Amino acid sequence: MTTTPGADPTMAHRIGEQTVTVLGPDGSPLAGAEVTVAQRRHAFGFGNIGFDFIPLANDEHALDPKEVETFGGASIEQLERLAELWLDVFNTATLPFYWGRFEPVRGRPDTGRLRRTAQWFADRDVDLKGHPLVWHTVTAPWLLDLSTTEVEQVQRQRITRDVTDFTGLIDTWDAINEAVIMPVFDKEDNGITRLCRAKGRIATVRMAFEEARAANPDATLLLNDFDMSTAYECLIEGVLEGGVQPDVLGLQSHMHQGYWGEEKTLGIIDRFARFGMPIHFTETTLLSGHAMPSELKDLNDYQIPDWPSTPEGEERQADEVVRHYRTLLSHPSVEAITYWGLTDDGMWLGAPGGFVRKDGTPKPAYDALRGLVKGDWWYAPTTMRTGADGTITVRGWYGDYEVAARGETATFGLDRTGTAEVRLG
Amino acid sequence: MTTTPGADPTMAHRIGEQTVTVLGPDGSPLAGAEVTVAQRRHAFGFGNIGFDFIPLANDEHALDPKEVETFGGASIEQLERLAELWLDVFNTATLPFYWGRFEPVRGRPDTGRLRRTAQWFADRDVDLKGHPLVWHTVTAPWLLDLSTTEVEQVQRQRITRDVTDFTGLIDTWDAINEAVIMPVFDKEDNGITRLCRAKGRIATVRMAFEEARAANPDATLLLNDFDMSTAYECLIEGVLEGGVQPDVLGLQSHMHQGYWGEEKTLGIIDRFARFGMPIHFTETTLLSGHAMPSELKDLNDYQIPDWPSTPEGEERQADEVVRHYRTLLSHPSVEAITYWGLTDDGMWLGAPGGFVRKDGTPKPAYDALRGLVKGDWWYAPTTMRTGADGTITVRGWYGDYEVAARGETATFGLDRTGTAEVRLG
Repeated sequence: MTTTPGADPTMAHRIGEQTVTVLGPDGSPLAGAEVTVAQRRHAFGFGNIGFDFIPLANDEHALDPKEVETFGGASIEQLERLAELWLDVFNTATLPFYWGRFEPVRGRPDTGRLRRTAQWFADRDVDLKGHPLVWHTVTAPWLLDLSTTEVEQVQRQRITRDVTDFTGLIDTWDAINEAVIMPVFDKEDNGITRLCRAKGRIATVRMAFEEARAANPDATLLLNDFDMSTAYECLIEGVLEGGVQPDVLGLQSHMHQGYWGEEKTLGIIDRFARFGMPIHFTETTLLSGHAMPSELKDLNDYQIPDWPSTPEGEERQADEVVRHYRTLLSHPSVEAITYWGLTDDGMWLGAPGGFVRKDGTPKPAYDALRGLVKGDWWYAPTTMRTGADGTITVRGWYGDYEVAARGETATFGLDRTGTAEVRLG
Repeated sequence: MTTTPGADPTMAHRIGEQTVTVLGPDGSPLAGAEVTVAQRRHAFGFGNIGFDFIPLANDEHALDPKEVETFGGASIEQLERLAELWLDVFNTATLPFYWGRFEPVRGRPDTGRLRRTAQWFADRDVDLKGHPLVWHTVTAPWLLDLSTTEVEQVQRQRITRDVTDFTGLIDTWDAINEAVIMPVFDKEDNGITRLCRAKGRIATVRMAFEEARAANPDATLLLNDFDMSTAYECLIEGVLEGGVQPDVLGLQSHMHQGYWGEEKTLGIIDRFARFGMPIHFTETTLLSGHAMPSELKDLNDYQIPDWPSTPEGEERQADEVVRHYRTLLSHPSVEAITYWGLTDDGMWLGAPGGFVRKDGTPKPAYDALRGLVKGDWWYAPTTMRTGADGTITVRGWYGDYEVAARGETATFGLDRTGTAEVRLG
């Protein structure tokens, strides 16, 4: 297996051994009792976008195409089944805060619908991330009517408002997206590129982190980019030099032009792991159809009427999904992977990158990923007997667990502390 | 003609009008006198490497191949003729301070030979630049025996020593070369990459500028790179954020894979001109033979036994040289262009990128460039009569001029001040 000094394919860094003291209702250790231990949740973030489920969470039964989010737009009738598939594999959802969609008319943000969607996920034990607070694409068109000074002012206010409005529900944010290209982005005139050209990248990144941090000091804030070249490294160095400390580095990995392979992927992770911050793979796509031509520089330039998922493509996708997830989890710096969509229905660019076909049936990649997340990398329910001191030893994947005995259930976290205590009843 | 808002093909920014008061030997204005005005030198830096002339300046008549500089190694017998060709077009020479060549044995730097070479150029009214003070390629191999802390120490000392030793002769330096790739350069283990990986790019850049500035506060210090992508922009932002102020941005333009064309070139200049610093095109190559395959990422990977200059290639090269120089001079931010070699004999990579063939005869590109530098862009000697107040008006390219009358000659600078005074006799 391809690996690097920074990676460990045995995944030892994701597995711990916990001594759990099981107490009875009276608080004394439950000696010699038969208990069943089961994993409930991964510590690792297995994420996907949750854009599709806004109508479901809001009990909307008609879908105005204009209202469909740019990325993610599955048909209403499929949503309940898709939600089951989603929830069976993923534990972290990214919600859309594209300014141009979230607040197409100044002063009328879509806060209510997004809050209900976030709550819907939270009720199902799913962590949330908001994406993104600052970006030049799909930004508010009305910024073009403002001066650069005013753009900065409203951008700061929007960060404060949205981070505040969602504190407690969404405590992880892509504070800024694609700052490397931001000031030289030339596809479309927009207020954020103007602002970034005037302020510079580092000052724009600082603005995003400053406001988000002030609004929610406990938030986890990401610097996120698709540029895996030395450009992003240089930006990170400059950002750190400028006294801005991201909590997490976000790396995109939309592989519409073909799977990167293990060597390239680990090389990229090693280069960014040098900064000592945790890494999230924030946006991952692997196709079950033909690849986009490699000469295209901007994925958005590829627009075709029909991009089919094929049987061979689906087999390859399943294989690549397994390889990609295995590779990422083998590196201790990676703490989360967010896949960019569940279903081909309404997927970004019309690409067959989902785990589910347009007709709602799961592709092999879905079963393959589930086989890892809930199989190879999952602690299967295990019945055992507590010792004389009421303890059991659980060796498993970091995450949340439950102990059940005599109709009672209690939970504990399997983490690096090595010990836990649960009280039944 | 392709242009951008930042460029002006009329070159108005390079041309000034000067009122020159001509004084006689007694210091009073020389009224109604016939004088001849001639340009002696360009303010713009028309540069080339001066590596070839080290043996000539040192009166060396045998050449040990091991002693030939990595870039530039024309045969001894051609040197006097080459020097004439060189001096007829260029006014600025880059001299080699590749650490691995300059000080192959620790403590035995090649200071004497390089000082004599610098003096040889200075005697011929040529400005000098030293290249480079910090670089990971052709660096001292003995750094590999040192700890990273020691590498930093000797690197700092070497900057101080060499900048000090050449102050007054060489007051312009590439303080650091190719910092974008420096910490991730993986072709060859070397002490500077190790150092840069440990310190980070910005701290390494700061080290270079700190030491060079301290050793020669009046020096012009460049940050130089071949990476024209957003990576270099991000590095520059970070460097400025870190409080390091280069005097000039150096952009390489080795076009072994084909001429960039006007649009790309101006786009690059505009992106870097945003930082408000003067720009030097520090390393330019255009071939008179076939292009290197475009898929190669590192030019050094292309090694062929014979790379001929062809008649069609020479016509194309002459055309591209004219287009490239015209494009660069059309942008007010560009203050110098250094071409990377005069002759194909001993040229870097064996490429036919010179202005002179291996047999010593000039190619069309030589005449084409000379036609610009000493023709289109040159103030032809002009005879005129001073007014009653002893003044003449000279409209010409910024640079050094002379006024001659009655067997006496005096010089003045044509610059942005608009006025000058010369005293004859």
